[in-house]
Amino acid sequence: MSTAGQVIRCKAAVAWEAGKPLSVEEIEVAPPQKNEVRVKIHFTSLCHTDVYFWEAKGQNPLFPRILGHEAGGVVESVGEGVTDVEPGDHVLPIFTGECKECPHCLSEASNMCDLLRINTERGGMLHDGQTRFSKDGKPIYHFLGTSTFSEYTVVHVGQVAKINPEAPLDKVCVLSCGMTYSSSLLAGFGATVNVAKPKKGGSVAVFGLGAVGLAAAEGARVCEASRIIGIDLNPNRFEEAKKFGCTEFVNPKDHNKPVQEVISEMTGGGVDCSIECTGSTQAMVSAFECVHDGWGVAVLVGVPSRDDSFKTHPIHFLNERTLRGTFFGNYKPLSDIPGVVEKYMKRELELDKFITHSVPFLDINKAFEYMLRGEGLRCMIRMDA
Amino acid sequence: MSTAGQVIRCKAAVAWEAGKPLSVEEIEVAPPQKNEVRVKIHFTSLCHTDVYFWEAKGQNPLFPRILGHEAGGVVESVGEGVTDVEPGDHVLPIFTGECKECPHCLSEASNMCDLLRINTERGGMLHDGQTRFSKDGKPIYHFLGTSTFSEYTVVHVGQVAKINPEAPLDKVCVLSCGMTYSSSLLAGFGATVNVAKPKKGGSVAVFGLGAVGLAAAEGARVCEASRIIGIDLNPNRFEEAKKFGCTEFVNPKDHNKPVQEVISEMTGGGVDCSIECTGSTQAMVSAFECVHDGWGVAVLVGVPSRDDSFKTHPIHFLNERTLRGTFFGNYKPLSDIPGVVEKYMKRELELDKFITHSVPFLDINKAFEYMLRGEGLRCMIRMDA
Ligand SMILES: NC(=O)c1ccc[n+]([C@@H]2O[C@H](COP(=O)([O-])OP(=O)(O)OC[C@H]3O[C@@H](n4cnc5c(N)ncnc54)[C@H](O)[C@@H]3O)[C@@H](O)[C@H]2O)c1
Ligand SMILES: NC(=O)c1ccc[n+]([C@@H]2O[C@H](COP(=O)([O-])OP(=O)(O)OC[C@H]3O[C@@H](n4cnc5c(N)ncnc54)[C@H](O)[C@@H]3O)[C@@H](O)[C@H]2O)c1
Ligand SMILES: [Zn+2]
Ligand SMILES: [Zn+2]
Ligand SMILES: [Zn+2]
Ligand SMILES: [Zn+2]
Repeated sequence: MSTAGQVIRCKAAVAWEAGKPLSVEEIEVAPPQKNEVRVKIHFTSLCHTDVYFWEAKGQNPLFPRILGHEAGGVVESVGEGVTDVEPGDHVLPIFTGECKECPHCLSEASNMCDLLRINTERGGMLHDGQTRFSKDGKPIYHFLGTSTFSEYTVVHVGQVAKINPEAPLDKVCVLSCGMTYSSSLLAGFGATVNVAKPKKGGSVAVFGLGAVGLAAAEGARVCEASRIIGIDLNPNRFEEAKKFGCTEFVNPKDHNKPVQEVISEMTGGGVDCSIECTGSTQAMVSAFECVHDGWGVAVLVGVPSRDDSFKTHPIHFLNERTLRGTFFGNYKPLSDIPGVVEKYMKRELELDKFITHSVPFLDINKAFEYMLRGEGLRCMIRMDA
Repeated sequence: MSTAGQVIRCKAAVAWEAGKPLSVEEIEVAPPQKNEVRVKIHFTSLCHTDVYFWEAKGQNPLFPRILGHEAGGVVESVGEGVTDVEPGDHVLPIFTGECKECPHCLSEASNMCDLLRINTERGGMLHDGQTRFSKDGKPIYHFLGTSTFSEYTVVHVGQVAKINPEAPLDKVCVLSCGMTYSSSLLAGFGATVNVAKPKKGGSVAVFGLGAVGLAAAEGARVCEASRIIGIDLNPNRFEEAKKFGCTEFVNPKDHNKPVQEVISEMTGGGVDCSIECTGSTQAMVSAFECVHDGWGVAVLVGVPSRDDSFKTHPIHFLNERTLRGTFFGNYKPLSDIPGVVEKYMKRELELDKFITHSVPFLDINKAFEYMLRGEGLRCMIRMDA
């Protein structure tokens, strides 16, 4: 029996209030409208960004809301005008999309689509501003256009990447998050392979060894960098980081001079490239100043707080250093992610080691607890369990 | 009669003291030693950098000294081990060189040779630390390894670019200067064509319309940019800048909001690239913040003062903007300049309009006066007149 065109009743984890545990309960999901698709979520995972908007500190709180943006699922039905995917397709919903028509989508360099660029404040769908979720007639807001903490969700067609149906959704779903202000894999991996682009045999410094930094190190390993220097204030991160290719470690606290000088001395003038994955402006400046003059490239991934400022002497630029930032690892979400999934299938990219925990959907609040305690990297949430 | 191996007596303009007019008088020039060449200078021109080291404010003064670094000449004789050039070759002496062996020379990206990178404090030759210039047995110091305000000079072979002998030395000699902290053509031109690389039809903002900025605009014209926006606090520069391809002008003083906002509004979100040629950190920040998110590239050419600092919110980087600096327009001096000379020969590049004055060698102090009064762009000094 097809559910297309029908309202679906299913379970979702609703955030009714800022900071209060999510409540898994039955809601209604309306059919997809023009340019929308309805997706059955199989796996979803939790990321700092969900926690951040759940805590809603210093934001305009938007509740009740269904959070979640890292997921893998299968298209259930499609709305008017949708031709890129059809029911049965395996997809990853993605918080930032591609309209394929705006100047950003038409530019090779950019992935910051004018229409479907990440928007954290919007609670309704683009088509009519309305929500597709409700409970007893009361609307429940969307989050990032994805809202994956629900058995069924409705997403703009420009925000789903169609992937190889043989890829295991419980692994590749972590690829759907690459937000710069989140713990994320593509942001870090792409920052290295798409933006810093270390040469084979080159040296790379990775600042911050959370999930983003580990993914950046993994990118350096895939590029066959010969030295991958991990920098973190927390030495507990070093052991884990060895698995991701880090060959050496520096804790800025162990030195009584700026860490950029330490790295410069270790490498005879600086590393070929550096990736900053901390959000600390101090680390951003160090990451920039520790690259070699003449050719060094520093890439910023971490998101600083609102009134931070990046400050350096301009002579560091004149000595032929480059500083770039990246959003979602410069991946074009719809165009590039299927290829990254293929890399995983060919075992060129490891994902399994990022997934350190797993819980059934009903225990989704445990995933929040792991994250708040800083335990592990990613917790997989199984919708069918 | 060959002069090879002999001391040559000839005229040079000696700076005996900081800030005092140069004195044109007879000096002795020793033969070139290992890896050195002796060059007969035909034309030389004056640049801010010569004036800066002649004024010697806040520096360790090094006098007596023979200044000059923009020139064209012919090899008179060569020292031991020199195989790249021979007597009779037309060359441009260059203040920054290529050893062709260090990591920078071996890197495609860099032109900052470890051995022959610009050195403003060295007064002797690399080989033995001695000077090749003297007057009545008293040594006279070298400047930048070039010292072109002399009928004959001695230069490291890694600091001469061999060029097409048909190129007019009184024109192409201006190509030998590209110092970032000088008024210079290659720095500006190369900043655009080698570093910013605007696409055909793209938009370019040039901050500062001195010789460097005009050369940057010329680069944008050669790249077929569709909009070339010139920005200067001095509106007298605008008329001249039209000849170099500028299509629009903005004077920051005419607006009561930051110039980056003005440019962003003029261009629907920002220019594709910007080149800063002022040395003002305020202009550097504006140049960076006025490029379009997603793909914008800003290039810094101007040299700031010692304790300036570049300050911006890191979110501008995260929105996929790139900031780079350049030295000598990223040209590899020996490898690339002959090709630039060919561009001039094929009329793809204009130089004549940069040369606004001309004086005989004996009147070299007039060239200083023109520059100090801010008159014109380049003054050509004719050695044989
Ligand atoms: N606003 C949010 O939603 C939010 C929440 C968490 C993380 N983030 C951003 O994501 C990025 C990284 O994410 P993650 O999940 O990997 O974070 P994470 O917190 O797991 O890892 C960051 C690591 O950086 C290290 N670090 C912090 N300051 C440092 C410094 N000055 N020098 C060296 N190391 C330093 C920390 O010890 C930590 O190990 C950060 O830029 C952060 O801004 C955003
Ligand atoms: N130390 C030295 O030897 C020395 C001397 C002169 C110039 N320079 C450097 O060379 C670069 C340019 O050389 P040039 O010969 O073309 O210089 P120039 O002085 O001929 O031209 C610079 C132009 O920039 C403009 N300008 C200054 N501040 C500005 C601002 N905030 N916004 C817009 N326009 C501004 C000025 O009005 C001027 O027209 C500068 O970076 C300068 O630092 C160095
Ligand atoms: Zn778009
Ligand atoms: Zn995420
Ligand atoms: Zn070298
Ligand atoms: Zn010069």
